[in-house]
Amino acid sequence: MTRLTHEAAGTFAIAPTPFHDDGRVDEASIDRLADFYTEVGCDGVTILGILGEAPKLDGAEAEAIVRRFVKRAGSLQVVVGVSAPGFAAMRSLARAAMDAGAAGVMIAPTPGLRTDDQITAYFSQAVEAIGADIPWVLQDYPLTLNVVMTPAVIRRIVMDNPSCAMLKHEDWPGLEKITALRGFQKDGSLRPLSILTGNGATFLDFEMERGADGAMTGYAFPELLIDVVRLSKEGRRDAAHDLFDAHLPMIRYEQQPGVGLAVRKYVLHRRGVLGSPAQRKPGSTLSDRARGEVDYLLSRVARFDKRASMTRPASGVDLTFDTHIAANPKGECQIQSSTGNL
Amino acid sequence: MTRLTHEAAGTFAIAPTPFHDDGRVDEASIDRLADFYTEVGCDGVTILGILGEAPKLDGAEAEAIVRRFVKRAGSLQVVVGVSAPGFAAMRSLARAAMDAGAAGVMIAPTPGLRTDDQITAYFSQAVEAIGADIPWVLQDYPLTLNVVMTPAVIRRIVMDNPSCAMLKHEDWPGLEKITALRGFQKDGSLRPLSILTGNGATFLDFEMERGADGAMTGYAFPELLIDVVRLSKEGRRDAAHDLFDAHLPMIRYEQQPGVGLAVRKYVLHRRGVLGSPAQRKPGSTLSDRARGEVDYLLSRVARFDKRASMTRPASGVDLTFDTHIAANPKGECQIQSSTGNL
Amino acid sequence: MTRLTHEAAGTFAIAPTPFHDDGRVDEASIDRLADFYTEVGCDGVTILGILGEAPKLDGAEAEAIVRRFVKRAGSLQVVVGVSAPGFAAMRSLARAAMDAGAAGVMIAPTPGLRTDDQITAYFSQAVEAIGADIPWVLQDYPLTLNVVMTPAVIRRIVMDNPSCAMLKHEDWPGLEKITALRGFQKDGSLRPLSILTGNGATFLDFEMERGADGAMTGYAFPELLIDVVRLSKEGRRDAAHDLFDAHLPMIRYEQQPGVGLAVRKYVLHRRGVLGSPAQRKPGSTLSDRARGEVDYLLSRVARFDKRASMTRPASGVDLTFDTHIAANPKGECQIQSSTGNL
Amino acid sequence: MTRLTHEAAGTFAIAPTPFHDDGRVDEASIDRLADFYTEVGCDGVTILGILGEAPKLDGAEAEAIVRRFVKRAGSLQVVVGVSAPGFAAMRSLARAAMDAGAAGVMIAPTPGLRTDDQITAYFSQAVEAIGADIPWVLQDYPLTLNVVMTPAVIRRIVMDNPSCAMLKHEDWPGLEKITALRGFQKDGSLRPLSILTGNGATFLDFEMERGADGAMTGYAFPELLIDVVRLSKEGRRDAAHDLFDAHLPMIRYEQQPGVGLAVRKYVLHRRGVLGSPAQRKPGSTLSDRARGEVDYLLSRVARFDKRASMTRPASGVDLTFDTHIAANPKGECQIQSSTGNL
Repeated sequence: MTRLTHEAAGTFAIAPTPFHDDGRVDEASIDRLADFYTEVGCDGVTILGILGEAPKLDGAEAEAIVRRFVKRAGSLQVVVGVSAPGFAAMRSLARAAMDAGAAGVMIAPTPGLRTDDQITAYFSQAVEAIGADIPWVLQDYPLTLNVVMTPAVIRRIVMDNPSCAMLKHEDWPGLEKITALRGFQKDGSLRPLSILTGNGATFLDFEMERGADGAMTGYAFPELLIDVVRLSKEGRRDAAHDLFDAHLPMIRYEQQPGVGLAVRKYVLHRRGVLGSPAQRKPGSTLSDRARGEVDYLLSRVARFDKRASMTRPASGVDLTFDTHIAANPKGECQIQSSTGNL
Repeated sequence: MTRLTHEAAGTFAIAPTPFHDDGRVDEASIDRLADFYTEVGCDGVTILGILGEAPKLDGAEAEAIVRRFVKRAGSLQVVVGVSAPGFAAMRSLARAAMDAGAAGVMIAPTPGLRTDDQITAYFSQAVEAIGADIPWVLQDYPLTLNVVMTPAVIRRIVMDNPSCAMLKHEDWPGLEKITALRGFQKDGSLRPLSILTGNGATFLDFEMERGADGAMTGYAFPELLIDVVRLSKEGRRDAAHDLFDAHLPMIRYEQQPGVGLAVRKYVLHRRGVLGSPAQRKPGSTLSDRARGEVDYLLSRVARFDKRASMTRPASGVDLTFDTHIAANPKGECQIQSSTGNL
Repeated sequence: MTRLTHEAAGTFAIAPTPFHDDGRVDEASIDRLADFYTEVGCDGVTILGILGEAPKLDGAEAEAIVRRFVKRAGSLQVVVGVSAPGFAAMRSLARAAMDAGAAGVMIAPTPGLRTDDQITAYFSQAVEAIGADIPWVLQDYPLTLNVVMTPAVIRRIVMDNPSCAMLKHEDWPGLEKITALRGFQKDGSLRPLSILTGNGATFLDFEMERGADGAMTGYAFPELLIDVVRLSKEGRRDAAHDLFDAHLPMIRYEQQPGVGLAVRKYVLHRRGVLGSPAQRKPGSTLSDRARGEVDYLLSRVARFDKRASMTRPASGVDLTFDTHIAANPKGECQIQSSTGNL
Repeated sequence: MTRLTHEAAGTFAIAPTPFHDDGRVDEASIDRLADFYTEVGCDGVTILGILGEAPKLDGAEAEAIVRRFVKRAGSLQVVVGVSAPGFAAMRSLARAAMDAGAAGVMIAPTPGLRTDDQITAYFSQAVEAIGADIPWVLQDYPLTLNVVMTPAVIRRIVMDNPSCAMLKHEDWPGLEKITALRGFQKDGSLRPLSILTGNGATFLDFEMERGADGAMTGYAFPELLIDVVRLSKEGRRDAAHDLFDAHLPMIRYEQQPGVGLAVRKYVLHRRGVLGSPAQRKPGSTLSDRARGEVDYLLSRVARFDKRASMTRPASGVDLTFDTHIAANPKGECQIQSSTGNL
C-alpha cells in the first residue's frame, strides 16, 4: 500500500468498528465497510479513531481489525488511530499497523497537555516512540481532547517532525485556523501539509473554500463528503453549498456529542453496511423517539438526494447507489429532487 | 410589567449589549433593539446574558442598561442575567432589575460546581441571596459553563425553589433531557415549568417537538425563531422544518464559540438595528473572509426568506419586513414572501 | 494468597515499577522491592497504580510484572491497579492478576465522569466487566483524576457492589470524608469497608484518628507508615505525631505532583532497593539541586530516625534496618534507635 | 505610600477580610489586622486576594475596605487584588486602590486561558485597562486558577509590561520555576523582578534557597514567615529549617483547599486579631473535630515556638510576642522548647 504523504487529499471516511449485538467484533461487517467505502469512491479510510470505540478493544483485537480492514480495503489508504495512554502501546499498534500495510497512523494529544511546550514535546516523544519512518496524522480536536493548539504550535510540530504528513483539523471554530496555516505556507514558514477536516463535516462547505484538501470524518453518507469536496475543487461554489445544505440537518443531528456514534451506526445499519447498530459496552443507544427523528431527517434529505432513501432492506448489501452527480453533462449539481430547482 | 411565570412561552430573544466603536454603551441602539424585538413579535427579551458581554460592564453600567431596556421594551417581558462570582453582586443587580420593572432574572451555575449536591446547594444559596420573591430562570449550559446537571438534579432545584419559573435549556445533546423533564411532569414528580431552548437554535426544530415551550436564544433573525415556534405549536411539522432548514446554514455559522457574537452583531448592524458591530474589549472581530461568508449565507437564506435580504442601508431603521411564508401547494419547502397564511 | 476483604488494615505500600536506565523492566529490582516490603513489615503492596507508570507498559509487560511480584511477595497481599481507558483491557488484566494470585484489584474512575449517576454507573459497569467475584479497591483521588465523589456517592458504589472491599481515600481535604463514611456505618447505612489513605501520607496522622484502617501510599519509608499506623491504633497520639512530624518535611517534598515519583525512586535507589532511579519515557528527573534538597532532608530526618540515614552503598541490598523508636521517658519526640518498645 | 517596585522583598501577609457573624464587614477587625501585621514586622500586606473572599464583596464594599486598610496600615505597603471577570471592574477597583494610597495591585489570569498567546495577551489587555502607571503583581497559581504559565511565558509577560513589579509564585511543584526565572536573569533575558512565594508557605524553606525574595501568603503566624525569610537571607540554613519544620504540621493543615481559610480565621480569632472567625456566605466552617485538631497542632507548635501558645483571651489585642529568635547572640535558631535540642 502506498504510504501517506502531504499530497493526500479527497475524502477519508472515519470508520466505526462493527460489533455484533453481544459485543464481539463483527468481521463480516468490516469487509462490507471496506467494500462500501471503496465503491462510493473514498480515497482513504481511518479506523480505530476516537469514534471507532478503540479504547474498548484490547491490543490483540485492535491488531486483528487493522489486518482485516487493510487486506480488504485494497486500493484505499488506511490510516490507523494509535492514540494511547502510553508510548509502549502506541508503538506496538503503530508498528503492527504498518506491517499490515496501513498507509499511516493518527495521533491525538494526550488529555492534560496545557502549555505550548508540553504539546510540542509530546509529539516529539510520540514520534521517537513509534519511529520516524511512519507517516502520521496530527489530530487537532480541542472539543473532545481539551488540548488547544495555536496555528504556531501546529507549525512547530509539523516542522519539527518530518514524518507528519497531515493535519486532521477539527477545531471549532476552525475556519481562521485553516487560513492561518495556509498563510504560513505562503510566507514560507510551513512546509507542505495535507489538511483534511473533521467535526462531522459541519463546516466542510467553507473549510474547502479556506483551503482544506478534503474531508476526514464519519458522516454516514461519505458520498456527500466526496461530492462536496469535488464540487468545491471544481469551483462550483453554489452547487457545493446546495448539496451540503440539503444534508446539513442530518449532519447537524449526527454531530451531537455521545449520540453521534449511535446515529451513524443506525444509519449504516439501515443502509445495509453494518450487520448491527450495536456498540460495545458502555455505549449509547438511540431512543425510539430519536430513531424516528433520524428517519424523518433521512426522508427529508432523500427529497433532494436519492441516496438517502432507505428503501433497501436493512440486512441487504446492495450498494448500487445512484451516484450520478459528477457525470451530469450540464456541469450542474443535479441533485434528485421533485422541485429540481435547488 | 408582568412577572415571569411557568406559563411563559414563545420567543425570548437574547439581546447583545450595544457598544460604540470606542467601547461606550450605545444607548440609542438599546432603544432600537427593544423596538426591533417588539415589532417582530418577540414575547420577551433576555439582557446581560453570557453573550451580552455582561462581565465587561461595571455595576453602574449594568443597572443603567437594565433601566433603559425595560423602559423602552414596553410590553416585552425582560429577563436580566445576574450571574456573578459572588452573591452580593448577584443580589444587588437582581433587586435593581426588579425595581426597574424586569420580569425576572436568569442565573447560571458558577463554574467549578461538580457534584449533584454542590449544584443544588448553589441555587438554594442564590435564591436566599436574591430573595425568594424574584422569579428566575435556571440556565443549563454545560458546554460553556462546564457544570453538568442531570434531569433529576434540575428537578431537585425546581422543586426546592418555588421561585424558579423557567429552564433555559441548552445542553448538547439535549433532546432526551427535554423528554425526561416532561416525563417527570407526567409522573407527577415535577411541577409545571417553562422550558425555552438556547444553543443558538441549532436544534429548535426537534426541541419544540420534544416539548419545549419556545426559544430563548440570540439568532440574528428572531423572526425565524418566532415562526418555527409557532409552526411547531400548530402541528405543521414539515413547514416548521422547511423554514428552519433554510436558515440552518446560517444558524450553524452563528453557533461557533467565540465567533458567534461577532456574527450576530455584524448581522444586526447590517439589519440597521445596531449602530456598530463593535464589542467592548477584549472582543472578537470578523475577518474580511468571514464577513464575506456571512454575506454569502445571508444571500442564500434570502432565496427562501426575504427577511434575510440585506438591501436596506446599514444605518437604516426600517423594520417593516415581509414576514410571511407561503404554504406552497406542492407541499415543498417553497418559502415565499407576501402571503399571510403561516 | 488470601483475597482482600473489608477487614484489610495496616500498611499497603504503593510500589513503583522498576526500570533499567534504558527503559526495560528491571526484574531483579521487582524481587528486591517485594523482599523490602516484606521485611519492613508491610501488610500488602499495590502495584501498577497511578505512580507505578502503568500506562507506559503494554499488556504483556503488565501481566509479567504482576506474576513476578505476586510470586515473590509471598505472604503480602498484592493489589493490582487495573484502571484502563476501556473495560476489555481492564478485564483482561484483572483476570490475569487474580489467576496469578493477587488479593484484589484497584479501580479509579475514568476522567470525565461528572454527575453522581455517571460515577456510580461507571463502577457498576466495571464490576460487570471484571466479574463480581474479584475483590476491588475504589480509588478516590480527585486532585489527579478530576472526578469528585461525595460520601453519599461512595456509599452508593459500595452498597451496590458487594465485591468492593476497600476505599483508597485520597481526597484533599479529606478528613471530614472519613468521618462522614464512619458515621454512615454507625447509622447503619453503610456496610463494613476498609479505608486506607493515600496522598503521600500528608495527613496520615489525623486520618488514623478519624477512623482510617491504615495507609496505602508510596512514601519511600514505608516503615514510617507502619509505625504511625501502629502508634495510632495503640492510642499513643503524641508518639505517633512526633514520629510523623519528623518525617513531614520529607513527606511534603515527596508529595509534589509529577516530581514525587522521581523523589521516591531516587530515595529507594539510595536505599539499595531499586537498581536505578530511572523512569520509562516520558519521565521526570531530579535536578542536581533537587537531589541536594532531598539529601539534606534525609539527613535532617535521620537525626530523629536512623532509618533515613543513607550510609549504605546505593547498590547494596542490606535491608537490616534499625527500625526501633524509643518511647523516651520525658514524653518528648526523642526518636531513637535500637530499643524495641514502640 | 511608596509604590511597589521590583526591589520589594520580605514578608507580605495575605489578609483575610473580616466579617461579623451576620456577614457585615467588620471594620474594627480591619484595624486590628493592620496593626497586627505592622507590629509583627511585615513588609507589606495583600488584601482582597483569592482567600480574601473578594468575589463576595460588591464594588462599594471593596473600595471601602481598601481605604480603611491603607489608612490604618501606615508604613506597610498594601497590594490590592483586583482580579475580576471583566476589565471595567478591574480598572475601577485598581484606580480607586491607587487613589487611596495602595502600593500596587495583584492580577490573576482569568480561568479558561490555555495557550501561551492567550495568557500573554490577557495581561497586556489588563495593563491597558488599568493603565501602565500602576505597579502590579502577576499571580501564578495553577492549582486554583487552572492556568499554566511556563517560565518563558512569565518572562514574556514581564518583559512586555514594564509595570509588572513582582511575581506571586505559587505553582506546585514550583522550585525549578524559581531557578529557571533566576537563570533567565543571569543570562540577561529577564529584567529584575521581585519573587514572593505563596502556597501557604508549604515550600518556603527551599523557595528562599532557590532565590525567592520573600513570602506572600496567609499563614496565621506571619512571624514564622518573617523569621524564615530572615534566617534564610542570613544564610542560617539549619536554623531556618528548624523553625520552619516546627510549624510545618500546622502549615500543612492550613493548606487544605477550601478548609484553609476557616483555619486561618479561627487561629486569627483565637489570637485576638479577628473579632469573629465568620466567613460571608457561602463559606466553610470548621467542625468541632477540626477545631480540636487545630488546637492540638497549636499546642504542639507552642512547645517550640511560644508565639503559638493560645493563653491570651480570644478577644484580647495583646500583641507583645516573644520574638527573640533573631536577637540570639549565638547565631542559632533558639526556638523555645522544653527539649532545647532542636
